[in-house]
Amino acid sequence: MKTRIEVPYNTLFGPDNLPYGVFAAEGQNFRVGVRLGEQVIDLAAALEDPVFAEPSLNAFMAAGPRRWQDVRNRIRELIDGEIPGEAVHLLHDVRTKLPVEIGDYVDFYASIDHATNLGRLFRPDAEPLLPNWRHLPVGYHGRAGTVVVSGTDIVRPHGQHRTSSDTTVFGPSQRLDIEAELGFVVGIGSELGTPIDIDQFAEHVFGVALVNDWSARDIQAWEYQPLGPFLGKSFATSLSAWITPLAALETARIRLPKQEPEPLPYLRGSQQWGLDIDLAVHWNGQTVSHPPYSRMYWSPAQMLAHLTANGAATRTGDLYASGTVSGSEPDQRGSFIELSWGGAEPVTVNGLHRTFLEDGDEVVITASARGSNARRIGLGEVRGRIWHARN
Amino acid sequence: MKTRIEVPYNTLFGPDNLPYGVFAAEGQNFRVGVRLGEQVIDLAAALEDPVFAEPSLNAFMAAGPRRWQDVRNRIRELIDGEIPGEAVHLLHDVRTKLPVEIGDYVDFYASIDHATNLGRLFRPDAEPLLPNWRHLPVGYHGRAGTVVVSGTDIVRPHGQHRTSSDTTVFGPSQRLDIEAELGFVVGIGSELGTPIDIDQFAEHVFGVALVNDWSARDIQAWEYQPLGPFLGKSFATSLSAWITPLAALETARIRLPKQEPEPLPYLRGSQQWGLDIDLAVHWNGQTVSHPPYSRMYWSPAQMLAHLTANGAATRTGDLYASGTVSGSEPDQRGSFIELSWGGAEPVTVNGLHRTFLEDGDEVVITASARGSNARRIGLGEVRGRIWHARN
Repeated sequence: MKTRIEVPYNTLFGPDNLPYGVFAAEGQNFRVGVRLGEQVIDLAAALEDPVFAEPSLNAFMAAGPRRWQDVRNRIRELIDGEIPGEAVHLLHDVRTKLPVEIGDYVDFYASIDHATNLGRLFRPDAEPLLPNWRHLPVGYHGRAGTVVVSGTDIVRPHGQHRTSSDTTVFGPSQRLDIEAELGFVVGIGSELGTPIDIDQFAEHVFGVALVNDWSARDIQAWEYQPLGPFLGKSFATSLSAWITPLAALETARIRLPKQEPEPLPYLRGSQQWGLDIDLAVHWNGQTVSHPPYSRMYWSPAQMLAHLTANGAATRTGDLYASGTVSGSEPDQRGSFIELSWGGAEPVTVNGLHRTFLEDGDEVVITASARGSNARRIGLGEVRGRIWHARN
Repeated sequence: MKTRIEVPYNTLFGPDNLPYGVFAAEGQNFRVGVRLGEQVIDLAAALEDPVFAEPSLNAFMAAGPRRWQDVRNRIRELIDGEIPGEAVHLLHDVRTKLPVEIGDYVDFYASIDHATNLGRLFRPDAEPLLPNWRHLPVGYHGRAGTVVVSGTDIVRPHGQHRTSSDTTVFGPSQRLDIEAELGFVVGIGSELGTPIDIDQFAEHVFGVALVNDWSARDIQAWEYQPLGPFLGKSFATSLSAWITPLAALETARIRLPKQEPEPLPYLRGSQQWGLDIDLAVHWNGQTVSHPPYSRMYWSPAQMLAHLTANGAATRTGDLYASGTVSGSEPDQRGSFIELSWGGAEPVTVNGLHRTFLEDGDEVVITASARGSNARRIGLGEVRGRIWHARN
């Protein structure tokens, strides 16, 4: 029994996109699939290739860019014809899991608007950007073991924080926030001692996903000096279930904003580009922000070149995220601490004045990239709901 | 052909110790062994248990504390009798590899003397300890993928740093340093949303290893604000090849130094203890420091309780390190930036005045713990030699 998948011309998930994920249909094991419209194609069944019978993308990602392109071509041939019926599932009917076994997780701070906003909020009497910010993509390591797939509930974290009377208390975070980000997944790693040249980006990076870097601002503010964020971030980071291959984003490449001063040579590429991707943040169903990835200061290739400039090895499955995507306008801010200006200027959500997350709140971050012929490439969504803190 | 292993009464690696590692004899695969004196017992062969045929300790660690104790008892019975000859190798004849597949790597900052020294060096006009330091064990995530086994050469990292004339340059680190630390390896992990109670430490932690957290001080100083150390650390972290089980360190338990203010309840245990372990730092063969672990402010159990207090999950193979172990005396400092007071007071090593690491330098960190009957429990060594930077 063969079937033909029809998708509307203006779908966000047409043959130009083809994001990969790991899914399980009723009564089946997790395996690799590709999304087409509102359907999932079981690649292990359709292509009869055992690399897709694995419960993560890692084996396929480790096969390298020629293989990625070859499989992409084969999938397009497949969907131009008829597909065995048992290899096609409705997206709605399958479960997804974390698509990648994550090695190391790094989070950058690549939006100049976000870094400036946080500088103004945290250091109101000083220059908002620290002296190093325009010289290197500031970043730090996060907790790989608490990256969870979109849809996972987020338990409000406990932690130490400082009250307004300078008392130190331990309890549920009162300033629970989001950070809307893009994540880049490493397919082909690199050896210890061997930096990844900035022009080798596409030889190493497999694809792009949406990230919500949940942040407990009260815990973070008290703990972060001098070694950076730790428990204010490590309770959970959500990743979208579908990874958009880099090849699908070629039409979204744009020039980077001007970098001044000129970066050092290891951060200068022969073909530097940013990405024309529009994010949207939905809070309990209401769209509260439209962060534009196009304004990000540091490029994905600059971040990877910097990450490895000291010889740090990378591994298949390493994830690095951009940091909060914020634009220059108030309705383009990618975190609630920025949207509500530190809680001082509440946002109206469904008629209520809101600052940080309350129990039961659900946040969905979506995004789409510029495609060809005025079409868009969907990056899917990363979704999470806040559960009350456990005792 | 059976053999009996004789070890001297005062060996650092007698039946009270029994550290585990992963080794390969000539022509054989890597597998789990236990060190006795200057010999290694092949546990897969001696105990005929497939969990020890794995090339890491993870499967054994995941089996839990009852099994750890049971295997320890069986090894003692084994060495009281005769062992099949093919299961015994000279330590000198085998290769070792990283004994653990590391999940997440966290580094703390638990020595009050180290934190005070660095505060004086970096912020000479301010209170050396930041306000949060006595309230929580400050820590951050490091790069798990660049933890290497003792003996691995360390390539001098390139990086951005700031010259004395405030120019930003990229080149080999000029202030390459060590940090002498203890590392704690998680055997049994914990679920997302479920903190590890401070009194449950021994249910989760499998053992202790030596760590050298190589640090490029010039890179670190320029990059670390506001998100903490990144490339100044991520080029390499060395771990000893042998993990001393927690059970071997029961005789080394001592009272913690007084903690003032009293920690919050989640950091108070019913049986708080530190460890009476003496480290030694050897620079090109000369012993330059004797850092005492006994003076560490935050206990191993407090670090784990804090790490998970926000509900962060832990996994078998997670590694957390203490941060630099320094004592109150100048010859007890566990880093060269402290020993040479920021480079201003060179140390004499083999008759030469030295501050930071030069190409060809070798650093060996050793340690031993208080055992029973005036004997010592060896923690082996972590060793590394500096190679010139690559172009």
